[in-house]
Amino acid sequence: MVSNADCVFCKILKGEIPSFKVYDDDHTYGFMDINPANAGHVLVIPKYHAPNIYEIPKDWVSDCMITAQKIAKAVHEVTRPDGINILQANGEGAAQSVHHFHIHVLPRSNDDGLKMNWELVPGDMDEIAALAEKIKSALA
Amino acid sequence: MVSNADCVFCKILKGEIPSFKVYDDDHTYGFMDINPANAGHVLVIPKYHAPNIYEIPKDWVSDCMITAQKIAKAVHEVTRPDGINILQANGEGAAQSVHHFHIHVLPRSNDDGLKMNWELVPGDMDEIAALAEKIKSALA
Ligand SMILES: [Zn+2]
Ligand SMILES: [Zn+2]
Repeated sequence: MVSNADCVFCKILKGEIPSFKVYDDDHTYGFMDINPANAGHVLVIPKYHAPNIYEIPKDWVSDCMITAQKIAKAVHEVTRPDGINILQANGEGAAQSVHHFHIHVLPRSNDDGLKMNWELVPGDMDEIAALAEKIKSALA
Repeated sequence: MVSNADCVFCKILKGEIPSFKVYDDDHTYGFMDINPANAGHVLVIPKYHAPNIYEIPKDWVSDCMITAQKIAKAVHEVTRPDGINILQANGEGAAQSVHHFHIHVLPRSNDDGLKMNWELVPGDMDEIAALAEKIKSALA
């Protein structure tokens, strides 16, 4: 794996930082965002450290997006949201906070008024753990 | 091509509705959003009518995302934004307005305060046409 010693997502991939896993394959990893913009917010990352969409080789982009599609279907089944956004951020203007390419699977409600650069607020860990189990089951 | 007679994006693909093309290959098509959230806003669509990420076969998702990556690099080069979001919307809660799967390549500025469900405001057609030419050149 192409890895960066200082990257929080690389540390998650190496198991050095815990995460609520929902999906894992040879090239990609899916886990709960612990600062969820809405309940059921999942992140997909490649097992390859590249900071953004400009620098990551295309096969990793493709693999991540296919995993994001699988997870979107599972999140849709579990949380029955009013909508789902697939979102990927590059650079300061897009409020990219971790510089390891990642895709958000983000459930929406009609009245959430969500901003593109939402504020990071820690979620309830028990609620996140319970949702992780349901989403993982829906993906199995 | 799998097409839907009432779909505005299928009509664009068939040339029945004009568009500012920036990219075209066997499976995908890229064109300017005429209601740009910011200057340089491009849409990528598959040459296959499916309403959303739940129903579209995965190869089309992958092809569109790889095209979105190419376009993001070109838009980055042309508009030098503070960031770029790749965004895909499903359902009413995500303000999906056209029910043909599409990916937004959306340049961002640090102070745009953009909402996830931005208001659709028609852009300046001359400005959009000029940007289309520049982005097309950067992709060539
Ligand atoms: Zn990393
Ligand atoms: Zn269509």
